[in-house]
Amino acid sequence: MINIERFLPAIAWLKHYRVNDFKQDFVASLIFTIMVIPQSLAYAMLAGLPAITGLYASILPSILYSLFGTSRTLAVGPVALTSVMTASAILPFAVSGSEHYASIAILLALMSGVLLLVLSLLKLGFLTNLLSHPVISGFISASALLIIIGQSKYFLGIESHGDTLLPLVTGLYQHIGSTNIPTLILSAFCITSLLMIKRYFGQLLTLTGLPESTVHLLEKSGPVIVVVVTTLIVAFFSLDQLGVAVIGTVPTSLPTMNVNIISWELIKALLPSVFLITIVGFISSVSVAQSYAAKRRQDIQPNQELAGLGLANIGSAMSGAFPVTGGLSRTVLNAECGATSPMTGIITALFILLTLLFLTPVFYYLPTVILAAIITISMSKLISFADLKALWGFSKKEAILLIITFLVVIIEGMEAGLIIGVVLSVLFFLWHTSHPHIAIVGRVPGTEHFRNIKRFDVETHNTVLTVRIDENLFFANARVFEEQLQSLVSQNPDLQHLILMCTAINMVDASALQSLEKIVSRLNDAGVKVHLSEVKGPVMDKLRHTDLLKQLNGHVFLTQHQAITTLTQYKAEE
Amino acid sequence: MINIERFLPAIAWLKHYRVNDFKQDFVASLIFTIMVIPQSLAYAMLAGLPAITGLYASILPSILYSLFGTSRTLAVGPVALTSVMTASAILPFAVSGSEHYASIAILLALMSGVLLLVLSLLKLGFLTNLLSHPVISGFISASALLIIIGQSKYFLGIESHGDTLLPLVTGLYQHIGSTNIPTLILSAFCITSLLMIKRYFGQLLTLTGLPESTVHLLEKSGPVIVVVVTTLIVAFFSLDQLGVAVIGTVPTSLPTMNVNIISWELIKALLPSVFLITIVGFISSVSVAQSYAAKRRQDIQPNQELAGLGLANIGSAMSGAFPVTGGLSRTVLNAECGATSPMTGIITALFILLTLLFLTPVFYYLPTVILAAIITISMSKLISFADLKALWGFSKKEAILLIITFLVVIIEGMEAGLIIGVVLSVLFFLWHTSHPHIAIVGRVPGTEHFRNIKRFDVETHNTVLTVRIDENLFFANARVFEEQLQSLVSQNPDLQHLILMCTAINMVDASALQSLEKIVSRLNDAGVKVHLSEVKGPVMDKLRHTDLLKQLNGHVFLTQHQAITTLTQYKAEE
Repeated sequence: MINIERFLPAIAWLKHYRVNDFKQDFVASLIFTIMVIPQSLAYAMLAGLPAITGLYASILPSILYSLFGTSRTLAVGPVALTSVMTASAILPFAVSGSEHYASIAILLALMSGVLLLVLSLLKLGFLTNLLSHPVISGFISASALLIIIGQSKYFLGIESHGDTLLPLVTGLYQHIGSTNIPTLILSAFCITSLLMIKRYFGQLLTLTGLPESTVHLLEKSGPVIVVVVTTLIVAFFSLDQLGVAVIGTVPTSLPTMNVNIISWELIKALLPSVFLITIVGFISSVSVAQSYAAKRRQDIQPNQELAGLGLANIGSAMSGAFPVTGGLSRTVLNAECGATSPMTGIITALFILLTLLFLTPVFYYLPTVILAAIITISMSKLISFADLKALWGFSKKEAILLIITFLVVIIEGMEAGLIIGVVLSVLFFLWHTSHPHIAIVGRVPGTEHFRNIKRFDVETHNTVLTVRIDENLFFANARVFEEQLQSLVSQNPDLQHLILMCTAINMVDASALQSLEKIVSRLNDAGVKVHLSEVKGPVMDKLRHTDLLKQLNGHVFLTQHQAITTLTQYKAEE
Repeated sequence: MINIERFLPAIAWLKHYRVNDFKQDFVASLIFTIMVIPQSLAYAMLAGLPAITGLYASILPSILYSLFGTSRTLAVGPVALTSVMTASAILPFAVSGSEHYASIAILLALMSGVLLLVLSLLKLGFLTNLLSHPVISGFISASALLIIIGQSKYFLGIESHGDTLLPLVTGLYQHIGSTNIPTLILSAFCITSLLMIKRYFGQLLTLTGLPESTVHLLEKSGPVIVVVVTTLIVAFFSLDQLGVAVIGTVPTSLPTMNVNIISWELIKALLPSVFLITIVGFISSVSVAQSYAAKRRQDIQPNQELAGLGLANIGSAMSGAFPVTGGLSRTVLNAECGATSPMTGIITALFILLTLLFLTPVFYYLPTVILAAIITISMSKLISFADLKALWGFSKKEAILLIITFLVVIIEGMEAGLIIGVVLSVLFFLWHTSHPHIAIVGRVPGTEHFRNIKRFDVETHNTVLTVRIDENLFFANARVFEEQLQSLVSQNPDLQHLILMCTAINMVDASALQSLEKIVSRLNDAGVKVHLSEVKGPVMDKLRHTDLLKQLNGHVFLTQHQAITTLTQYKAEE
């Protein structure tokens, strides 16, 4: 029974699910569906696909995640960042709007789903940790900026392609002459209305005397109102006849993957993109899920999350859509609509299915500019200098890492930015650990405490030197450690005993072991005995299997105090 | 004055250099020159160049290193591993023996020299630490095996190219029909003589009653005797007429780089190879230098070593040769010949220059098979399973890393093996640190010591939980740490205070800071206060510049004992 619950976490909450919960979830889902539809359409457009695909991507994935995911609040569907990464990944292989393009999008969702399941099975979720905070921050700001610039073509009503700064800007410049004036005017209206409604709608609602929670909820429906009004304007004035792009007729069947275009080469070529889309999607999803789980003292199992999101993506592929994940804005909406359980994910999916079956004619006159305007406004919130400022105060190196990631994304693209960011963060970290803090320590008089001789007034000995290494010993610093010790020994000609105090060493790898063996053998040649003190249990367990302890010409002392007492007495006796 | 000594370490030893030192170094250099010549010729052949180039590579580089390097014993010149890596690097661009090939070899030496100087100027020597012990070990065994297989063509007297297992073996198989019988017989003679002389020459010499040190030195000259005898045999029987390859006439001018073949594309294409040749060369050189320095209580400055080896390589390029570095077997010979100072490097260089000027006709009949035999025997010592066995006992993961590196080198080549090895060692390390050891601790009754509740019988509290993290907090484990804490909190419903005991945390990066802020804010939402105890000085210095301490709803305690006393009293008062 426990095992089934582990693989199907839904059982846990379904056991306690009551009719009243269902009533609340039903109402929450209804409101959520209305609000989330424009967002889903917009993000499909961002992925370079027909806007309606965003709804396909919101049904099966949402149901599968509700059953297999561990978060009780997370809403899964199309998300801005992964959508634009999807577009970037497909662009080198197909033209937006073609059957090829849609097939590759489906392939991406399938591959991403399989990758997530593989990561889950092999428990390789830790790979997602490779994206450090500065890299993510630089990546998000730069991507948001690129997305916003990319929306301009919709506002101008022109054709233009490109996914990095230079092609985007030159594309706009070349086609700006063919700007569609009605589209431009409608764009201005959309953006202004969205900004105004965001700013004043809440205040207006408060005046009506409604309870605060209702006001807060209704406030979120502002964009929906603008979407409805804009659609009505387009329909009333037949603006589509004047060149304003609208969603138009929705096809009656789901897009399917044309398996003929799938080749082993294509799969290999897409693999790096799939990897990055998957990792970015997973990280943003888990961080949203965790912040909600923490508030409610619930627990998120990252490994099961990989499985849940993996199945959601496979579901998306089966629906002819594109990679999905758990989104911040979706989840905030879901929580504010009053969702109490993953059941809302299932009910919402059914409402969206009904919409697709019966209400698509309503979308005919929905203009793409309103979707572009929604994207632009939500992305503008993601460009932030506050993070850079805070980082600059905390660590210049990490701030520079953020800037480099930002610039590489803008100039070379999202994937190049992420890869360079990851490589640099790993190198920065290795640089740091390869310059370990090594302190010579002495006894604080009258105590058993040993402190840095540079900071404290402590007792030292000519012939006995104690060195404390404040770092794990592994390949990146093993040789540095060798050099530093050698340098210390060459500076202390009277040295007879060297004690390595190992309090802060949590691991020793084979490279470090080799260095330790070299140190022991070299110092032996030079007539110096090497001792260890305060070795941690797990480290000692590992050393016990090695020749180091046999080669050691000194002792292993349980405490530093014991070591010093023994070695200085020994000296006195000599 | 101090500054000059830093950049020209020769000044330090020249100041104390006396006539008697010169006499000893003169004799040592004379013996060393005779012994090192066959080796130098052999390694040039390994690099795919005319054997005589090995002597060009032994003059200027040796002088420059003597002046600018920091080791007093290291002998710099052609080395087996970097030579074969050089051949691997050039093969895709030129045919061995062509002018193109020689030009690219010179370019490689020049680029390697410049890279070493750049690494020295930017103090980026730590990059060389990326090669972990298992990777180096697997790399050396596999390379030695490939080198040995590669020598077979000389023993058979056939033409064959290739630098990985499959092409090497198929090449041999295809050409084995045209085996030159006199060459094969001579090969058998060379290998047998070398093995016999290695085994019995020392015993024979001991019978003569010579002092042990002289025996030891003369023993090393065994290969030279075989070289001389073999050359005489070839000359006497005119074996070169029967198809035995000999060194032949040595050109009277140095090879020069044909600058017309150098393009920006070529430089870019060679860059990865240069990087790997340089790093492998530097690591092996420094480890030899250090083991001698340690015995004599001298000091090696890795940064100045980069400069010394950089200039040596630029010198090699100016001599029309190929990448050089400090070699183990050269250095052992040098030390055993009785070298007392880097002056031997300079005198040896002059002797080799004289050899080139006046004695090249002597080399005319020197057969290449004797060089191949010397290479084969010295390489066979490098293939070792002892290391793998020791590693297997110490860490299965690192043993597997060794095996993977070995296999990739054999199958895909030296560069691919090194790159995959480095990436996997970094991932293994990150995997390890991203699964940090986190212990819940309690007070050992009657003391101020706090230990793991799983290992010791300690006092704990329902409402106060103390967690000790045994790892640096950085991007690779920040989120794991978040998840684990959240999981702990969800398991302890009565929790009011969480103390993070920070004894083993040596660094906190921006990602970890963000995780800490999230933890504080989430636990605040859940009504739990977060406290810190025993934060290390440097970590506290960094945290002081952040918002974390302002957001912290608990306290920062100097000691864990203080924390527990305060928080449990506080509880009692409530």
